[in-house]
Amino acid sequence: MRFLNATLPDGSRHDIEVEGGRISALLPVSTSAHDGVDLGGMLVLPPLVDGHIHLDKTLLGLPWIPNQSAGNTVSDRIEAERRVRAARTVPEFETGSNLVRQVVASGTLHMRTHVDVDNQLGLRNLHEVLKIREHFRDLVTIEIVAFPQSGILRSPGTAELLDEAIAQGADLVGGLDPVGIDGDLDAHLDAIFAIASRRGVGVDIHLHDGGDAGLTQILEIARRTEATGLQGKVAVSHAFALGSVSTDSVTRAADTLARAGIAIMSHGPGGATIPPLKLLREHGVEVFGGSDNIRDAWSPFGNGDMLERAMLIGYRANFRHDEELALAFDMVTAAAARVLGLSDYGFKVGGPVDFVTVEATTLAEAVATRKRRSLVVKSGRIVAKDGALQTPLPR
Amino acid sequence: MRFLNATLPDGSRHDIEVEGGRISALLPVSTSAHDGVDLGGMLVLPPLVDGHIHLDKTLLGLPWIPNQSAGNTVSDRIEAERRVRAARTVPEFETGSNLVRQVVASGTLHMRTHVDVDNQLGLRNLHEVLKIREHFRDLVTIEIVAFPQSGILRSPGTAELLDEAIAQGADLVGGLDPVGIDGDLDAHLDAIFAIASRRGVGVDIHLHDGGDAGLTQILEIARRTEATGLQGKVAVSHAFALGSVSTDSVTRAADTLARAGIAIMSHGPGGATIPPLKLLREHGVEVFGGSDNIRDAWSPFGNGDMLERAMLIGYRANFRHDEELALAFDMVTAAAARVLGLSDYGFKVGGPVDFVTVEATTLAEAVATRKRRSLVVKSGRIVAKDGALQTPLPR
Repeated sequence: MRFLNATLPDGSRHDIEVEGGRISALLPVSTSAHDGVDLGGMLVLPPLVDGHIHLDKTLLGLPWIPNQSAGNTVSDRIEAERRVRAARTVPEFETGSNLVRQVVASGTLHMRTHVDVDNQLGLRNLHEVLKIREHFRDLVTIEIVAFPQSGILRSPGTAELLDEAIAQGADLVGGLDPVGIDGDLDAHLDAIFAIASRRGVGVDIHLHDGGDAGLTQILEIARRTEATGLQGKVAVSHAFALGSVSTDSVTRAADTLARAGIAIMSHGPGGATIPPLKLLREHGVEVFGGSDNIRDAWSPFGNGDMLERAMLIGYRANFRHDEELALAFDMVTAAAARVLGLSDYGFKVGGPVDFVTVEATTLAEAVATRKRRSLVVKSGRIVAKDGALQTPLPR
Repeated sequence: MRFLNATLPDGSRHDIEVEGGRISALLPVSTSAHDGVDLGGMLVLPPLVDGHIHLDKTLLGLPWIPNQSAGNTVSDRIEAERRVRAARTVPEFETGSNLVRQVVASGTLHMRTHVDVDNQLGLRNLHEVLKIREHFRDLVTIEIVAFPQSGILRSPGTAELLDEAIAQGADLVGGLDPVGIDGDLDAHLDAIFAIASRRGVGVDIHLHDGGDAGLTQILEIARRTEATGLQGKVAVSHAFALGSVSTDSVTRAADTLARAGIAIMSHGPGGATIPPLKLLREHGVEVFGGSDNIRDAWSPFGNGDMLERAMLIGYRANFRHDEELALAFDMVTAAAARVLGLSDYGFKVGGPVDFVTVEATTLAEAVATRKRRSLVVKSGRIVAKDGALQTPLPR
């Protein structure tokens, strides 16, 4: 089987030969007639990877629900979400599945989702997302972070629930603003790192707290990561603080983060500061991208399109040069794949027959224009075409 | 003639009756069969208005040209653009026309374009854009600002060229960072306001200079606006400074701007501070939106879609509530129309048969999801459908 007439990111044109479920060769474009799927010179990209999504929060597919947050703090939004959650009648399985279908149509085949765990919800959202993971198992890989959205100390019993979430199938333990939400850096991190150590899993902590207060927490996460031998298994999501402290401070922090093997996730925040992505990368820190909120009680925005997300990251980081856009692209592909520990990822000879095609001549152009994906191919099958899932959905 | 089954922003459903080239009535949705164009319950919006575009800068339709700026300052980008401009072989008429076609397909029927004028270019770009305006005169209205992109003092002879540009058909005189670029607030503004007064035209000044230095310039523009009786005819584009000074300072400035009738244009900047749009509006300052750069020597981003621009403005302003998204929408429709002085604008009985339809149930949803426009109607004719211009292009 062949896919004909592909443009690779280096500008070369190839036919893609498939054998035994793998890409067996990249051949010169055949001039004679050949059976196969004609890609029409479209640019071929590896699958997009969403390093931070909330499958259980989205309201996608429901009638429009206006944002109900009384104020602009994280606490205000937690309260607003609790009200929206209490009022909803459609299970998270349904809305989350809507989102999975939408992101697959835009080329995302791997994701890390955070799932709310607190003493009101218990493990209900985890169970919904586990069902989603099972339902779409042949289409996408879904890594699950048990996420204490209501805090750990503020929501007694949550530490035990997080631990149980791991036992029931979550892959990592999450955290949330140890100081800003729980008001106790050590107690919050004690709980998280105890679970991570006991269960042998990684950590991904939401950190919105800005300025030096936020930086202090990031450095303490780094210290504990090294102390518990979790290097390479810990991420800090958002880390707005890294964008609001002095260059000296963030440069020193970058070296610390690199040594501790801590990855930084950014979604290119609209209303907050963005970490200095190039500086972090230059100092050896893994930076990766994610959607964060998608039409949920937190934000009306977002659609899960990771090429658009790369654009937003680049836009907020003031990226303009092609090599900068390539970094933004890397954040939503290879870098996110490394953070998720995907062992069989990438468009290459010997690799899986997973790829995305888009009308563009370079990666930079693909990020800047982020046209509708012409094809999404998973395990050699076309699962989406011109932005629409192919029905019946392959399963 | 009728357009059937429209959803209006207030949620009501109507048939749109057309007579004598105007919307003659909004009728209850007919239950009996009726001739007409079925809008299928799509949301009907007034035409989108781009308050700040650069038709002469875009490279749209050319092979991808990587950004060549050596650094991150406005001066670096001016220099890079001069190199790109010198190397280009395709006339601005062609690329600018590509952009007009693209924005019409997304529902923009009115725009204010800045056109570079300096002592290297002379009035060449103006002549190209005048040709574009003439070519598309039945489809879009184009207001032209003669824009001293290389400065006025730094590019001797530019003041005379700006004056001549007005004589030849430009509608407003522009300006650029009087201190940051020309290093002389008074001399720069003397030149601009002299032309505006002599020619009886408005003013639209690019102001990237931030902080208190930028604020000082904005206040001096306000002082001169009142002194020359130009209230209501002056805009400051970008005005990043309003987003980087103290709340006290910007609140006082807002009152001054309101009194002077100065409008503030924001494109929702990615790498700079955004003016406090709600505060300005609450103090009576007109705020409006524009695309700014679209795939040109300045930026790889942008596509001219003003619903997407409203999203970006809302994203950067940290808007989440429906009434906030309505403000962002207003900035790219009615507010921009007021700034452009459009006398025959708006979707209403008695108004022109110009409108846009999109799959959404509320304005907020339209901004957040910004789906492809299902129809763009100009003077009662469908000029674009599902994001594609209808060919042959109506002229």
